[in-house]
Amino acid sequence: MNPSYYAVIMAGGVGSRFWPGSREEKPKQFLDMLGTGKSLLRMTFERLLPLIKADHIFVLTHDKYRDLVAEHLPEIDHSQILGEPSRNNTAPCIAYAALKIKDLDPNATFVVAPSDHVILKEETFRENLATALQFASTHDALCTLGITPVRPDTGYGYIHYGEAAQGTVHKVLEFREKPDLETARQYLESGDYLWNAGIFVWSAKAVIQALETHSPQLMAVFSTALNGVWNTSQETTWLQQWYPTTPNISIDYAIMEKASNVYTIPADIGWSDLGTWASLHSERQSPDSGNVIDGNQILALDVTNCLIRAPHDKLLVIKDLDNYIIVDEGDVLLVWPKEKEQEIKNILATVRNTFGDAWL
Amino acid sequence: MNPSYYAVIMAGGVGSRFWPGSREEKPKQFLDMLGTGKSLLRMTFERLLPLIKADHIFVLTHDKYRDLVAEHLPEIDHSQILGEPSRNNTAPCIAYAALKIKDLDPNATFVVAPSDHVILKEETFRENLATALQFASTHDALCTLGITPVRPDTGYGYIHYGEAAQGTVHKVLEFREKPDLETARQYLESGDYLWNAGIFVWSAKAVIQALETHSPQLMAVFSTALNGVWNTSQETTWLQQWYPTTPNISIDYAIMEKASNVYTIPADIGWSDLGTWASLHSERQSPDSGNVIDGNQILALDVTNCLIRAPHDKLLVIKDLDNYIIVDEGDVLLVWPKEKEQEIKNILATVRNTFGDAWL
Repeated sequence: MNPSYYAVIMAGGVGSRFWPGSREEKPKQFLDMLGTGKSLLRMTFERLLPLIKADHIFVLTHDKYRDLVAEHLPEIDHSQILGEPSRNNTAPCIAYAALKIKDLDPNATFVVAPSDHVILKEETFRENLATALQFASTHDALCTLGITPVRPDTGYGYIHYGEAAQGTVHKVLEFREKPDLETARQYLESGDYLWNAGIFVWSAKAVIQALETHSPQLMAVFSTALNGVWNTSQETTWLQQWYPTTPNISIDYAIMEKASNVYTIPADIGWSDLGTWASLHSERQSPDSGNVIDGNQILALDVTNCLIRAPHDKLLVIKDLDNYIIVDEGDVLLVWPKEKEQEIKNILATVRNTFGDAWL
Repeated sequence: MNPSYYAVIMAGGVGSRFWPGSREEKPKQFLDMLGTGKSLLRMTFERLLPLIKADHIFVLTHDKYRDLVAEHLPEIDHSQILGEPSRNNTAPCIAYAALKIKDLDPNATFVVAPSDHVILKEETFRENLATALQFASTHDALCTLGITPVRPDTGYGYIHYGEAAQGTVHKVLEFREKPDLETARQYLESGDYLWNAGIFVWSAKAVIQALETHSPQLMAVFSTALNGVWNTSQETTWLQQWYPTTPNISIDYAIMEKASNVYTIPADIGWSDLGTWASLHSERQSPDSGNVIDGNQILALDVTNCLIRAPHDKLLVIKDLDNYIIVDEGDVLLVWPKEKEQEIKNILATVRNTFGDAWL
């Protein structure tokens, strides 16, 4: 295990499309969305452990989720939980993590990994990640794992990649915004495009250099902290004062779309961002009924293509439903047609206005 | 208030068609089926209070429901809760209550009232009941309130009645078993038939006399207890030993279908036996959506003709359902098409075999 490998798990998201599973007080990454007995965050952490020491794994989250992170990852120290005082998108928090890690180890190379995705082929993921870490630790390179697309999805950004630079590492030609369906079909057919899954690998030095070059405004805020603040008791004070003033920009916009030293490794790793109940459903559908059932006592009679979740001590008896989401989260029950799940997010405003904040 | 008026509320039933609302440990009569904040038993008790003193109201129930009865009717003394050691149908328990009440007051007249029915027109009910009590206290008569039928229902027994004997009190010509639909239609058209709702009024003397005449086998069991057992500490001992040996017969079969001194008062009292979820539904349906909704936070979008019940502290968000029963009882959730509700009773065996007794 390379002693200069680090990881930053991004765990600040809210995932409101998974309501009522996901709540403001307990978002998606803290839930056992797959019925494995482990939260998505926990699975992300364990997926990294064969390559990166537990005490080199940082978790970036919102201040209010610090305790939840500690609960899910008891192996890590509180100092490894980096709490943002405000939600300012990915560029500021990656910059913060990079500065902190570089302060610990000037030769550090680290992976940025979302905490709320599913990766079914963990071995392949680690092979690709090892390649990326090795390449990034020896080159001035901004690397990303690009997901081999399996459908013309219009919900993701795409990575247009060129020739191999070394082994399976390819030069990136350009990043493309979410396409329309026709364009997405062309991307899929060409074989030259990958999904941008937000998995990045770089040396602390390279990413800081890129941020300074392409996002000087952002780095100007961090320049107020350059002398010996990181990994000391002054860090929190600095963050409280300055972090909220950083510009709200994504890491893609801040550096990936602008830099010329961007590389990708095409990765066929059984990836899903579990963006919606339907995507969770499609990951786990039973071949006979088309159902996905999470719960210990669920009697589903003439029930097909449904996603059913219930607390482990609850009995559900359900008859004659097709293509519904039925999620019982103890204090909330949702029964909703699957094909209208985009509307779930909108209904939350109605819930808030009618019944108050308690259920969000 | 006539000091010799008494009541016997029958509260031993199980009501398994209302599962999961109704359970073996807490049957229908202990539930707030109408969303009024009061159980059906409590409503039955309060309905009688203007005519009968609280300390003259007895509740017949199974031994295991004694505490529940006491909880719902804190006004009554434990000695007014008559626990059957076994479920032996209505004739034995009415015989027991009659003997006990006659021992307290040889001139007693009492009403037998089911605990799990709904009566919407309470004033009319009390007028009819007052008439029946008055008539029964002054005649050797077995009276019953007969419900004016509002549809050709094949689920009830019918009372064929003749000319008025006194005011609204009519002589009963005969009791008829549950009819087929064609016969039920004829009954309804003729205007000479009433539903048998199991509401009886008689003097203790008259009903004991009728039982001795028409059910000597049953009364032979009680003859072992004739000397000073009732309302003493020996009563329970006697019951434990002898009650389970009484024959399992209904009061209709034991006396009403055989005696000649049977009278009825046609009663248009907004009665429902709430036999099923659908009947509960038809009592309370909202005119616009056709829904019946019990719960504090229920958001029903494009939901019609559904019956929805939830704990008061639960949020339900439901979309696009028609004609379903959705009952969340905390530990059990039922989602079931309303037109198949007769099958709910059968599913309980599957629940028991698959998941054990805990949810019944």
